[in-house]
Amino acid sequence: MNEADIVRLLTRGHADPRALGFDDDVCVIDGDIVTSTDMLVEDVDFRLRTFSAGDVAHKALAVNLSDLAAAGAVPVGFTLALALPEARVEARWIEELATALRALAAVEGCALLGGDLSRTDGPIVIALSVFGKADRVLRRRVGSVGDRLCVSGELGAAAAGLAILERGVVGDEWARLRGKQRRPSPRVAHGRALAANEACLGAIDLSDGLAADLPRLLPEGLGAALDLSALPIAADTRRAAEMLGVDPVSLATSGGEDFELLCVLRAGAPVPAGFTAIGEIVRGAGTPLAAGFDHFVTPG
Amino acid sequence: MNEADIVRLLTRGHADPRALGFDDDVCVIDGDIVTSTDMLVEDVDFRLRTFSAGDVAHKALAVNLSDLAAAGAVPVGFTLALALPEARVEARWIEELATALRALAAVEGCALLGGDLSRTDGPIVIALSVFGKADRVLRRRVGSVGDRLCVSGELGAAAAGLAILERGVVGDEWARLRGKQRRPSPRVAHGRALAANEACLGAIDLSDGLAADLPRLLPEGLGAALDLSALPIAADTRRAAEMLGVDPVSLATSGGEDFELLCVLRAGAPVPAGFTAIGEIVRGAGTPLAAGFDHFVTPG
Repeated sequence: MNEADIVRLLTRGHADPRALGFDDDVCVIDGDIVTSTDMLVEDVDFRLRTFSAGDVAHKALAVNLSDLAAAGAVPVGFTLALALPEARVEARWIEELATALRALAAVEGCALLGGDLSRTDGPIVIALSVFGKADRVLRRRVGSVGDRLCVSGELGAAAAGLAILERGVVGDEWARLRGKQRRPSPRVAHGRALAANEACLGAIDLSDGLAADLPRLLPEGLGAALDLSALPIAADTRRAAEMLGVDPVSLATSGGEDFELLCVLRAGAPVPAGFTAIGEIVRGAGTPLAAGFDHFVTPG
Repeated sequence: MNEADIVRLLTRGHADPRALGFDDDVCVIDGDIVTSTDMLVEDVDFRLRTFSAGDVAHKALAVNLSDLAAAGAVPVGFTLALALPEARVEARWIEELATALRALAAVEGCALLGGDLSRTDGPIVIALSVFGKADRVLRRRVGSVGDRLCVSGELGAAAAGLAILERGVVGDEWARLRGKQRRPSPRVAHGRALAANEACLGAIDLSDGLAADLPRLLPEGLGAALDLSALPIAADTRRAAEMLGVDPVSLATSGGEDFELLCVLRAGAPVPAGFTAIGEIVRGAGTPLAAGFDHFVTPG
């Protein structure tokens, strides 16, 4: 079974108009209140060898805030469920986790509202639910032939950072890329601007990579003609790709965890500030890209 | 560190008037929308030897709905975060989990709104956030000397069921008690009735046992004079206690997981339907009870 099969099993028969399901990352609770849930598991989503407690905390909150950002929502609060192996986790580790959560929560105006603690004999698990308000929720499965695709920020940096951490490559020149992997910045302000932009038809955050997330943004049967030379890839990401012996465009399209926003804009609409135009919607499959990340398929 | 120490570390500096914290199980997101988060960890909260996938699913949703019930809220939906060890979990197991979630969700009018999946190499983890609406949220830390304490349903049955499951005691005569442990009934209707009852000052659900949860319900410095002979203990729970060689009153006060509601009523107010009067609030420590359950303290 892959992730989609499991989601199908779980959601079958749960017909509810508010239930955008597991495919859309944000769902509407009531009125303008939306929520997103994301779980990080040690040794799947992070390793204690390369992630401090502060990195784990920041990333857990950031990936959830990224889902709110993609919906155009303003964060209001979050709850925290934490499974801790008491034999391996000390007070100082929890303190650092708490400090980093507090720091990002303060920046984003997002209060810790409550939660649940459990001990475990297995990996650390941190599951957050974040809540936000959205006058207009940006959805997926939007756009038609000729509409523009734009992406915020830059692509491939988080994947380059992961490879650098996993291979233990040292050197300050890669510090920014390590930071992109450990402490992504949720694009909350960009998402709010998109929600206020009438030309924006919908958006998604790039958690699993452009190749995996783009098909989730577009309606069935439509694809994207991408200008791969236009993909925003930073100079240090290109240098890292060369050092790692990988194609920088593959990092940008398949690496994942950039947590940038990918949006659909009506044909002819201007590119929003902080975004880069990367292509347009076409009938059919569009530009072929290598596969993205699936939690239940181990790379060969 | 015990659970309270960890919660103190996590919540320090997160001053928000809506944040009832980890101590109160329900928090207010916005307006009348409340939420609760609870996480179940395999081999801490359940074992696959004694819990089917349906039991795990039912209990995970029920314990969260119980928190909403204690707040007097009406459930509207939930999200699900699930960490699955792919090597140990088959499609049939997930299907049974999905079916049981759907069944309880349908009974309680509570839709699956979305969620997140992850693989894990460790124990199964299931974390739910449930959402509800409450015109009036029933709080904790309420009451004064002379006010009444009442409890819904019965006590000790879930703890008796746990002991029967853990010791592998067979026999249909214990089927009801096993069911109380595996598939608790959240007291949603009882909670709504309490919220509509002006004489009810506040409530808590009994997840960790009367001994642990009673002090969380009462204001600092106040205790409860309990009539231990009045505790509602069913005949089969008493028979099980005898068979197990334990005191039925200890099961009722320290066993936990009954998910009944304990409420404070103004002195002289009538006992609500489905509740039993068990004592009244006094100054000081009140009736001594054995300790309840702490996730981070292993029983000696």
